[in-house]
Amino acid sequence: MILQGMFAPIPTPFSPEGEIFYDALEKNILHWKQTPLDGLVIAGSNGEWPLLSFSERVELFKACTRLSGKRFTIIAGTHCASTSETIELSLAAADAGCDAVLVLPPHYYKGQNSHRAVIKYFTDIAEASPIPVVLYNMPANTGWNLDWSIATELSHHENIAGIKDSSGDIVQIARICKNAATGFSVFAGSGSFLLPALSVGCNGATMGVANIFPDATRAIFDAFSRKDMSLARRLQLALIDINEAVTKRFGVPGLKAAMDHAGLYGGPPRPPLEPVDDTVYREIVKIHDDFKKFYEEVFSS
Amino acid sequence: MILQGMFAPIPTPFSPEGEIFYDALEKNILHWKQTPLDGLVIAGSNGEWPLLSFSERVELFKACTRLSGKRFTIIAGTHCASTSETIELSLAAADAGCDAVLVLPPHYYKGQNSHRAVIKYFTDIAEASPIPVVLYNMPANTGWNLDWSIATELSHHENIAGIKDSSGDIVQIARICKNAATGFSVFAGSGSFLLPALSVGCNGATMGVANIFPDATRAIFDAFSRKDMSLARRLQLALIDINEAVTKRFGVPGLKAAMDHAGLYGGPPRPPLEPVDDTVYREIVKIHDDFKKFYEEVFSS
Amino acid sequence: MILQGMFAPIPTPFSPEGEIFYDALEKNILHWKQTPLDGLVIAGSNGEWPLLSFSERVELFKACTRLSGKRFTIIAGTHCASTSETIELSLAAADAGCDAVLVLPPHYYKGQNSHRAVIKYFTDIAEASPIPVVLYNMPANTGWNLDWSIATELSHHENIAGIKDSSGDIVQIARICKNAATGFSVFAGSGSFLLPALSVGCNGATMGVANIFPDATRAIFDAFSRKDMSLARRLQLALIDINEAVTKRFGVPGLKAAMDHAGLYGGPPRPPLEPVDDTVYREIVKIHDDFKKFYEEVFSS
Amino acid sequence: MILQGMFAPIPTPFSPEGEIFYDALEKNILHWKQTPLDGLVIAGSNGEWPLLSFSERVELFKACTRLSGKRFTIIAGTHCASTSETIELSLAAADAGCDAVLVLPPHYYKGQNSHRAVIKYFTDIAEASPIPVVLYNMPANTGWNLDWSIATELSHHENIAGIKDSSGDIVQIARICKNAATGFSVFAGSGSFLLPALSVGCNGATMGVANIFPDATRAIFDAFSRKDMSLARRLQLALIDINEAVTKRFGVPGLKAAMDHAGLYGGPPRPPLEPVDDTVYREIVKIHDDFKKFYEEVFSS
Repeated sequence: MILQGMFAPIPTPFSPEGEIFYDALEKNILHWKQTPLDGLVIAGSNGEWPLLSFSERVELFKACTRLSGKRFTIIAGTHCASTSETIELSLAAADAGCDAVLVLPPHYYKGQNSHRAVIKYFTDIAEASPIPVVLYNMPANTGWNLDWSIATELSHHENIAGIKDSSGDIVQIARICKNAATGFSVFAGSGSFLLPALSVGCNGATMGVANIFPDATRAIFDAFSRKDMSLARRLQLALIDINEAVTKRFGVPGLKAAMDHAGLYGGPPRPPLEPVDDTVYREIVKIHDDFKKFYEEVFSS
Repeated sequence: MILQGMFAPIPTPFSPEGEIFYDALEKNILHWKQTPLDGLVIAGSNGEWPLLSFSERVELFKACTRLSGKRFTIIAGTHCASTSETIELSLAAADAGCDAVLVLPPHYYKGQNSHRAVIKYFTDIAEASPIPVVLYNMPANTGWNLDWSIATELSHHENIAGIKDSSGDIVQIARICKNAATGFSVFAGSGSFLLPALSVGCNGATMGVANIFPDATRAIFDAFSRKDMSLARRLQLALIDINEAVTKRFGVPGLKAAMDHAGLYGGPPRPPLEPVDDTVYREIVKIHDDFKKFYEEVFSS
Repeated sequence: MILQGMFAPIPTPFSPEGEIFYDALEKNILHWKQTPLDGLVIAGSNGEWPLLSFSERVELFKACTRLSGKRFTIIAGTHCASTSETIELSLAAADAGCDAVLVLPPHYYKGQNSHRAVIKYFTDIAEASPIPVVLYNMPANTGWNLDWSIATELSHHENIAGIKDSSGDIVQIARICKNAATGFSVFAGSGSFLLPALSVGCNGATMGVANIFPDATRAIFDAFSRKDMSLARRLQLALIDINEAVTKRFGVPGLKAAMDHAGLYGGPPRPPLEPVDDTVYREIVKIHDDFKKFYEEVFSS
Repeated sequence: MILQGMFAPIPTPFSPEGEIFYDALEKNILHWKQTPLDGLVIAGSNGEWPLLSFSERVELFKACTRLSGKRFTIIAGTHCASTSETIELSLAAADAGCDAVLVLPPHYYKGQNSHRAVIKYFTDIAEASPIPVVLYNMPANTGWNLDWSIATELSHHENIAGIKDSSGDIVQIARICKNAATGFSVFAGSGSFLLPALSVGCNGATMGVANIFPDATRAIFDAFSRKDMSLARRLQLALIDINEAVTKRFGVPGLKAAMDHAGLYGGPPRPPLEPVDDTVYREIVKIHDDFKKFYEEVFSS
């Protein structure tokens, strides 16, 4: 399996009572099926994985593969703090029909993250997982950067298929693109640097903003492929504000607010995450609508 | 309840097969009962809490209160990523007879940790917990610092009893001591700065090194109380190397190695943590024995 | 003046006795005149500005403009810690015939760098300088990041012509490209991310590696302009190792070693900088020769 | 020479026109002579050394030694970015009658600060300086921490007399106290952690707040010496707010504002530093007066 294309790291919908809201999930996935999205990341950072129980994650994997019905490549976020639990959840993800698992480096005991220890951790998981492992570098959340030398070494394992790098360190991403084993996928982990990532050789991306503007993110891929660098750049620069709003600035609550506004189901996050307040909601609406208007004008002309 | 004195943040013993090893736990606790320790912290960072399941933590709390038999004040580490799960585990800790719960700030979605959000998180838990909450600041692991202004504001909640501050920021600790509500306990979170922390008004400490040298840490408290500052300083300076070895430098694996050497049960950590290698083991043995020799010479003269 | 194209941030040559070595400077500049370089940055970080006296910098500016003889756009590094001294040196740079001045944000008293204070600092200098100011963001050296909102605000000043951003934060660079005033130049500050920077709209770059491989850096510009993204990418990925070797990894001493090896004059840096040792020298030679061989193969085919 | 006691890192007074204001300097020093201060640090961070020219620093050293007339131990801040200029200024400081020089680690090219390189830098200066060198660790300004292992190694040089550590890392300070050569002085670099620093063995301190409340800082030393730990703690805790106000929070402008309010000459800082605005001035006045009132009440009872 070679992973490529445009993935949405979907949020997990909760009912007002705080349970996983499967009707809303179905509504969202039915919508995404009509878009150019290539795949979904389930129970990643946007999916509030730390706030889900083990069994909730398993049920979520099952629901998503059922609702996808082969339409999407499904990457299941199976990171748990312990190696054994991560393996157990990866087995369950494979059983549920997911295509790959997304795994973070160890990060609570980050003081013990020697190069050797991190290699061993991912290798142990890759050996045990029936489906390929995708490395997940997310230093803004973990406080620890998975550097290119580790990623490159792991790229040679036959069951490690790629990396999602959300660090924003474009030189690090370029070094992985250059040095990784053939067939290893390098995914940009944010829509804010999609075009620069494509320019250095990434073959895919998972982007919060792809949940709400999949057409626009696809348009950047396509413009880049057609070598319409001017259009690609215009779209990329315009996309940053809305992507930052639903990631770094306002986090999962911001993404859910934007989805509510866009006619998808966003709903409440789980505490300690809190819904955005009215002021932030209005700001997100404005940023969303500004981008939408820009995008429509570009393609109406 | 006013928390004070000297606490050991105990490691969770695992059998060679990786299960919680209750016979070893009993052996260790029987030993600690013969020392001047005032209390135990269960399933904290040294207890590998992220690597334990919810039910394992509950069983561990029960076993520790049973084995303690009122001898120790027991603080249960009940932090989970979600507010509701933390509350649920805190209820279980109260049922198990623990005296207080130790709770970290939210830290995976640290970008959303506004002052207000962190206040709300701890307040929600304090409102729901039958036993007092102890705040736990551990930026080396969480990547986020719980600053003195938040701690001070929370100190006025009637069910928030204190803070364990492992940051090593002595000015921050001093500001908490100065500004916190009366009766709020401020605990040094490391044996490396016990004496400076006492000098600014801390009334207790939880220290990795207290697992293996409880007499020595008590001797620092006592010397400080007697105003024998010269002895207190000699002991403090000597204690740093062994305390750093079993915390920052070699982590939980280092602490477990030192316990094995000292005649307690250390045993293996859970992966991804790995036992120390032979070179590190020998270094820990040397640091341990050097301190032991120093300590015996001080008290034989 | 609109700044654009490819600039070399040249090192300041010192004789074995430690004086500025003008014969070597002449040799180097004569060489660079035969290359596709568009401009030179004098007394920047690679030029060891902190290790030069005020009068040495003035003399250096004069020598460079004389040796350039209108061939190059010359940007003079005139940052001094105080506003008044920076202005004085900028006046001298203008007198010497330089085209623009490069100025860092204040950084020793970085705790006082409010948005307003930094705006005032650059505005004061821009008001007083006879030649345009180029902002210089170099957080690896200064410990302080000049963010896109400040750069954008300053871009509207008529005597602030552009920014050299060496942060490597490609999203920040993209935001400046999007939001800056028309005609404001955005320069990549490193050859390691030239192509990604071009992809988001930069119109120039100053790159350590341009001192030794100006043809190769020009080839990336040209390939990008021709929309030969495949060649641009191959060159960019190959360029990273040698660029990192002469910047982040081995610093100015590494750049000077590479220049010595490449037939230019590198010579010794000024203490506290020390020449690279033999092991590092051999590593630099290997990285240099590997790139050279790669480059020749690309263009011989 | 063994350095010990309480030092004020004095600000450099400027006239409204921006020149060094020697009449104001004389007024301030005459005042300090009537206090229990043991020494003065000239042209340190509080002295705005980066904003002074070489010759201004020399004149300042001369004026201070003349005005002191053997009353104070005088430590001259002679750090320049280059080794040779630091040596030259250290020779001038010795000629001017200063007792020691205060030198920062290299910090612009911090990427090249290997252990070996920093050792060489300080050793070169210590070999050349006629008067002892005091190491100066100030990571908040330099962005680079001089760790205890380097300080300990340098402590064995016969012309390196001590360290001023402003890091606030009390464990690092304790390790220097434990491991440094006999006779090496360890100075706390801030009044916010004076008492903790004394508790681990520091024999002196240089503190911004000592410029305005020398009696109070002396009272902490004395209470500690008399083993009146309760009084020492009360004073230390009370001192933090005013010390932070004139250091971290409002910097040199804050210190100068407090001095103006206290009847000394503060005056304007040099740009890019700006005087505090009215709101901050009023806050500083309140913090100053609150401490003064507290202090008078303590000693009137």
